Amino acid sequence: MATNTYSIKELLKGTALLQEVTAKGWIRTFRSNRFIALNDGSTIHNIQCVVDFENTPESTLKRLTTGAAIAVTGTLVESQGKGQKFEIQVKDLEVLGDSDPETYPIQPKKHSLEFLREKAHLRVRTNTFSAVMRVRSALSFAIHQYFQQNGFYYVNTPVITGSDAEGAGEMFRVSTLDAKNPPLTEEGSVNYKEDFFGKETNLTVSGQLEAETYAMGLGKVYTFGPTFRAENSNTSRHLAEFWMIEPEVAFMDLDGNMDLAEDFIKYVLGYILEHCADDLEFLENRLLQEEKSKPQSERSEMTLREKIRFVLDNNFKRVSYTEAIDILKSSKPNKKKKFQYLIEEWGADLQSEHERYLVEKHFKAPVILFDYPAKIKAFYMRLNEDGNTVRAMDILFPGIGEIVGGSQREERLDVLLEKVKEMGIDEEELWWYLDLRKFGTAVHSGFGLGFERLVLFATGMTNIRDVIPFPRTPQNAEF
Amino acid sequence: MATNTYSIKELLKGTALLQEVTAKGWIRTFRSNRFIALNDGSTIHNIQCVVDFENTPESTLKRLTTGAAIAVTGTLVESQGKGQKFEIQVKDLEVLGDSDPETYPIQPKKHSLEFLREKAHLRVRTNTFSAVMRVRSALSFAIHQYFQQNGFYYVNTPVITGSDAEGAGEMFRVSTLDAKNPPLTEEGSVNYKEDFFGKETNLTVSGQLEAETYAMGLGKVYTFGPTFRAENSNTSRHLAEFWMIEPEVAFMDLDGNMDLAEDFIKYVLGYILEHCADDLEFLENRLLQEEKSKPQSERSEMTLREKIRFVLDNNFKRVSYTEAIDILKSSKPNKKKKFQYLIEEWGADLQSEHERYLVEKHFKAPVILFDYPAKIKAFYMRLNEDGNTVRAMDILFPGIGEIVGGSQREERLDVLLEKVKEMGIDEEELWWYLDLRKFGTAVHSGFGLGFERLVLFATGMTNIRDVIPFPRTPQNAEF
Repeated sequence: MATNTYSIKELLKGTALLQEVTAKGWIRTFRSNRFIALNDGSTIHNIQCVVDFENTPESTLKRLTTGAAIAVTGTLVESQGKGQKFEIQVKDLEVLGDSDPETYPIQPKKHSLEFLREKAHLRVRTNTFSAVMRVRSALSFAIHQYFQQNGFYYVNTPVITGSDAEGAGEMFRVSTLDAKNPPLTEEGSVNYKEDFFGKETNLTVSGQLEAETYAMGLGKVYTFGPTFRAENSNTSRHLAEFWMIEPEVAFMDLDGNMDLAEDFIKYVLGYILEHCADDLEFLENRLLQEEKSKPQSERSEMTLREKIRFVLDNNFKRVSYTEAIDILKSSKPNKKKKFQYLIEEWGADLQSEHERYLVEKHFKAPVILFDYPAKIKAFYMRLNEDGNTVRAMDILFPGIGEIVGGSQREERLDVLLEKVKEMGIDEEELWWYLDLRKFGTAVHSGFGLGFERLVLFATGMTNIRDVIPFPRTPQNAEF
Repeated sequence: MATNTYSIKELLKGTALLQEVTAKGWIRTFRSNRFIALNDGSTIHNIQCVVDFENTPESTLKRLTTGAAIAVTGTLVESQGKGQKFEIQVKDLEVLGDSDPETYPIQPKKHSLEFLREKAHLRVRTNTFSAVMRVRSALSFAIHQYFQQNGFYYVNTPVITGSDAEGAGEMFRVSTLDAKNPPLTEEGSVNYKEDFFGKETNLTVSGQLEAETYAMGLGKVYTFGPTFRAENSNTSRHLAEFWMIEPEVAFMDLDGNMDLAEDFIKYVLGYILEHCADDLEFLENRLLQEEKSKPQSERSEMTLREKIRFVLDNNFKRVSYTEAIDILKSSKPNKKKKFQYLIEEWGADLQSEHERYLVEKHFKAPVILFDYPAKIKAFYMRLNEDGNTVRAMDILFPGIGEIVGGSQREERLDVLLEKVKEMGIDEEELWWYLDLRKFGTAVHSGFGLGFERLVLFATGMTNIRDVIPFPRTPQNAEF
């Protein structure tokens, strides 16, 4: 690359003012046969390139269409026009790749999000998706930075798993056996001994159990990788393939776990406020525009950045499940039978409507619920002395619902074994997990955070399909 | 956690000297009924904890076995003994979790790497594996930091793919259909329309094609995620599940690609020299010990850190495939027929023995080979004007062989279409990839780096199964 080639982000900072610069990017708009709005993905903002149309051949001007890739060389000057501080006065212009306006799907007009989902290979060329994906990238990095600065080690737990004891949901089978005529055992079932791994394998639903093995050696670890659910949920909140962050810490109890989760979330949201100001401003305005068509009562009380700052500035409310049930039982919507699922007694599983009531109406703050009934939670959660509740915690966010689920893990071999039996889990499958309780066991805790839910919250998008590049959902694995 | 609890890494820096501190970890050794070597995973080093054995019950002393989890409280003092600067004079000691020396597999003696692979859930409790995994974690972070500091955006390309045009290798099928009796079409083949995604899906072998769609919108992107090969390769260099880094940059040609790859590799290796000094020192000494049993001629000429520094301090040799063939043709091992595959003519695919000759014997430096014959490379690589070669590059490392494979991508629709036809690839499958050449196409390039190969190089380990927590290989998906 020539040394005078700059990203548009750099040019818009005034880098190389009054110098001859080259910029390369894609045309967003071209107006008055003169003004190109050029974008290269480095920032939400375009740079204005002023074409000397009198000395530019008509044939070239005609090719300056939305989506075309061009290289311009010219002088970076302060702009006299409104709307931008700097612009390029073009001396030399080359069309690198044309874009036929008759067939290019991404025109400078508002496209529906549904339409753009069908064009997932091109939608990142829009302002909305480029902003979302830059924020997603920044959040990813903030996550790594937080953990690395705090003494955690990154662990890649396996994606293909031979263990089906995780129990977090339906799984996808991974196989290289002949799909139509799989080899069978003498008893007539599929003979997985002949499969690639010599056993039945699936895509992981969680790296937690493997992460625990590493926490019990390295002390503080985290995963950040893809996880899978083969559930036929066609909702705006579910993906079949999504990314999850799972820290796991030896010698940490549930209180430490709550402290960690709160500190972590505040750090990563603070990071994007600082590093993604332009993109968040754009997304905030986009949201305001979106909501104009809604009745006043359905509009958000806070703007996007106010919502993020609200999370940063407030302590998360820590409320036991038992307290929450009391609040819900005596709440107006329960008494007036407005809840779809009425709360009648202790032990009920909370639905999204209850979580939203607690967060949005009652506490008006992020809420950490803890000490859930053992019966509605996973086998590995630590039983409290009461014998009825476990040291689980869920963090509930406004608009999103559950964003974090975690627990202190059952470190006592005898209690864990009893639970495993009670739940009918195959003990032999778990031999390695049980080993952690046999050799140098200790209190430890961790949580899982669904990355796309965090991106939803941070960007104000409402459908989870719009915050991951190529969403995987029932009946959809295009690209 | 109590405020006076410190990691052993902090304590060994002299943090809280002469104060009362608490440390929690696992016993590595306990000798003379007095000296505990305690490790918590935060560092390769143990802290010595001096037990007041006269005032500690015999029953407690008996429980201080290798692998037991304990909490000690005492004063951090300068050590009078050799081998450590600081130690804890224990006032209070609690055994958190016992470890039966009769059954605990990780004893304070040398275990073979093969044995430890069977104990992948416990092997991170050894010095070797904890060092490898801390280096792996640091390398991961350095990778993110390099790209983020240089204006790249992180992109999560899909793991489950409906596209089988990547052509990089055999794939694993992902399905929720009944394994024994899958639904069939009228023609008698498996009816994937009834599968979860409504089509046949596999685990990705590369995120490159999808990353290209993002580069052509965001400009500079990178992936870092798991990729899969269902090849029955039981070697020390192959995994069925491994992590790959794939940057992709719009407006960058092959020269830029070589510059980027070299700069990137030097950055991440420089990062671990700075941040993992203790672990690298340990791994270096481990390697020296390992090699003592080898004849002089088979030992490395350089120590581990010398090898890393050698890569940092030297320019990678850039050599065209054609030049390399000339060198190989007239090389001693070719003339004396020592190569298993003799190099006879231009067009031959290079084998590992040839790559190693070039790197280790001829150039004695990392080598970038470029401009390969089109016939032995992938369909998406840019054809040179000679019509015979493509703008491909491979980076070859001493001991490792190919560590990076990349190319400038074919940006011309007509040339790409011809190649797709020639290679018999289904054009319709690639509609979205071809769209990139229809709308605003431009020169762009990228490469793939197999993360585990980099970790092998950085740690001096020789089997790829030993640099990933839970390796997936033919017949092996335990844990």
